[in-house]
Amino acid sequence: MGRESREYIMNKKVHHWIRPEIQKLSAYHVPAPGKMIKLDAMENPYHLPEDIKNKWLDVLRDVELNRYPDPSARSLTEQLRVAMDVPADAKIILGNGSDELIQIICMAVAEKDRVVLSVEPSFVMYKMIATYTDMEYVGVPLEEDFSLNEIALLNAIDVQEPAVIFLAYPNNPTGNLFDEAVIEKVIAAAPGLVVIDEAYHAFAEKSFIAKVMNYDNVVVMRTVSKLGLAGLRLGLLAGSAEWLNEFDKVRLPYNINVLTQATAEFALAHKEIFDNQTAEIRKERTGLFNALNNIDGLEVFPSSANFILFRTPKGKVDAIFAGLKEEGVLIKNLNPAGGHLQDCLRVTVGKPEENAAFLAALKNALT
Amino acid sequence: MGRESREYIMNKKVHHWIRPEIQKLSAYHVPAPGKMIKLDAMENPYHLPEDIKNKWLDVLRDVELNRYPDPSARSLTEQLRVAMDVPADAKIILGNGSDELIQIICMAVAEKDRVVLSVEPSFVMYKMIATYTDMEYVGVPLEEDFSLNEIALLNAIDVQEPAVIFLAYPNNPTGNLFDEAVIEKVIAAAPGLVVIDEAYHAFAEKSFIAKVMNYDNVVVMRTVSKLGLAGLRLGLLAGSAEWLNEFDKVRLPYNINVLTQATAEFALAHKEIFDNQTAEIRKERTGLFNALNNIDGLEVFPSSANFILFRTPKGKVDAIFAGLKEEGVLIKNLNPAGGHLQDCLRVTVGKPEENAAFLAALKNALT
Repeated sequence: MGRESREYIMNKKVHHWIRPEIQKLSAYHVPAPGKMIKLDAMENPYHLPEDIKNKWLDVLRDVELNRYPDPSARSLTEQLRVAMDVPADAKIILGNGSDELIQIICMAVAEKDRVVLSVEPSFVMYKMIATYTDMEYVGVPLEEDFSLNEIALLNAIDVQEPAVIFLAYPNNPTGNLFDEAVIEKVIAAAPGLVVIDEAYHAFAEKSFIAKVMNYDNVVVMRTVSKLGLAGLRLGLLAGSAEWLNEFDKVRLPYNINVLTQATAEFALAHKEIFDNQTAEIRKERTGLFNALNNIDGLEVFPSSANFILFRTPKGKVDAIFAGLKEEGVLIKNLNPAGGHLQDCLRVTVGKPEENAAFLAALKNALT
Repeated sequence: MGRESREYIMNKKVHHWIRPEIQKLSAYHVPAPGKMIKLDAMENPYHLPEDIKNKWLDVLRDVELNRYPDPSARSLTEQLRVAMDVPADAKIILGNGSDELIQIICMAVAEKDRVVLSVEPSFVMYKMIATYTDMEYVGVPLEEDFSLNEIALLNAIDVQEPAVIFLAYPNNPTGNLFDEAVIEKVIAAAPGLVVIDEAYHAFAEKSFIAKVMNYDNVVVMRTVSKLGLAGLRLGLLAGSAEWLNEFDKVRLPYNINVLTQATAEFALAHKEIFDNQTAEIRKERTGLFNALNNIDGLEVFPSSANFILFRTPKGKVDAIFAGLKEEGVLIKNLNPAGGHLQDCLRVTVGKPEENAAFLAALKNALT
């Protein structure tokens, strides 16, 4: 068979067998940052001190790369329970980042025409993974100030009867904590599961983790990514065994590798380092917020996360974003998302000198 | 709401929302090996030499744990292309072990009533992941000597029109390479995709990788697990961009973490170490095969992998397995799987002293 006819037949087969919803997707594109100051991805800018790094490498020396990992990561799980204040009677399962946990939840409940519900704008993977798992996705728009629209949300729950509701707390890319009382109403109204995604918990004052066992339909997600370990891809799901035992059946058995288990265990044994780093970032956030607020023409949104969302003067956002890039500062342009995110940019809180460089570049770009 | 009524309502919700196929599954159980000689999991028994380990740790010292990994693992991918003899025009995507790649493939084609087809016995995750992704699974029994049953297989393909066919080459848990001519007929008859799973390639002489681009419906899987890096959980899928671009859309964007990327890159730059280890294991396999063959009452199956399947005298398998455990040797009891695996055990090829300990324990257990 010639190359041409092989390709013709292959395209027909691909078109026939790959689900149309998948064919319609574009691949997730992440720009290479090059040498820029990287304030686009909510990463903690700090590294481990050298002496701690040496101790970490000593731990890795004894890791058996040739053996399969502990499939239930027992030791790490119990350390995470303490570090993340997970109640003693809650069950925990781990994933390669929150992404894998979202996928596990969706796979376990996925039936054609079942609905995954979230708010808009929020973390894009809720919608993506709903599509991967062949479910309907419904996004209920937030208010203009990015708070929950209680009436719209309760109405959507009533009409859509979602299998799962994802609520990021604090929300990404907006940075705010939703009203707890409204979330309580959502939980009470939800016929299925409510997932509280606390990825940014290290920068917030509030959490649902202590009361996760009070509900019959709530689980809480956490991650070590924003704590300073984005490279590890380790997320955690906590809640009642009734739900978690089912999700655990859909988890690939050896999903957390030996290096992740050993490194996360080591890091949590030195959690005060990360706590100090996140405290530093929270302090910097206040300074950055005030500095942005003092710039004419910007609308700056309060943040309980390690990033700040701000709206730029109408119609100038793409030029400002490009200007920042030209000056070597990479942040996130949310304008393409549209809706209430029109004219909006999101900057991750970095080190003092990175934030200063960003502010200087922004002022240049605005003039 | 009291604890009792909370649990009652929760159980109702779990029962309503978790798919019945998932509720029916039992969680994958892996026994803790304790201090036993571990010949149950097809692990390479050898470690890295100390001087190489030091170089590896030096590499990890510069890994940025606080930054997200390269989402396409570009550098590692190109190294894998060379190490695994992937053709220059093939596209490659990586997964957390072959498990994640199987899941990606199934998710991309999953529609209710579509069929995943494999042979029985084979790798259990094909069936498990078909269930996770809400597809039908059809397992076509192998012949009694574990070769492909050509007529049954072609007939099943004709009747079932499978979206995906998984063929492990060599097969697990049987160790044999299927007849290449029959696989060619399967590929020609398959209306959908054929996945050749070459997890055990390091111990076999044959592969489909060089000709993967000749077909319009074939992709090849590889892994570094059996090479000696089971702890890393790194698998590879290679094939035409037409298929792989679609699968890449369903891959979670940052699925391969920074430590896996850096460690696998380092290991592949020292691939001769692993090649020497696998050559040693192949040599040991011959010795172990001959020794087992010389034991009265055993039927030993030829292996192109790093394990050997053998059948024990009728009705004694559980006692033999327990006897081995008592003597501190853990292998795999396949008797519970039934069918042609009745009375069968599978032993991973270990170090010379481990294989000797196994043989001594086996002789004791047989008397």
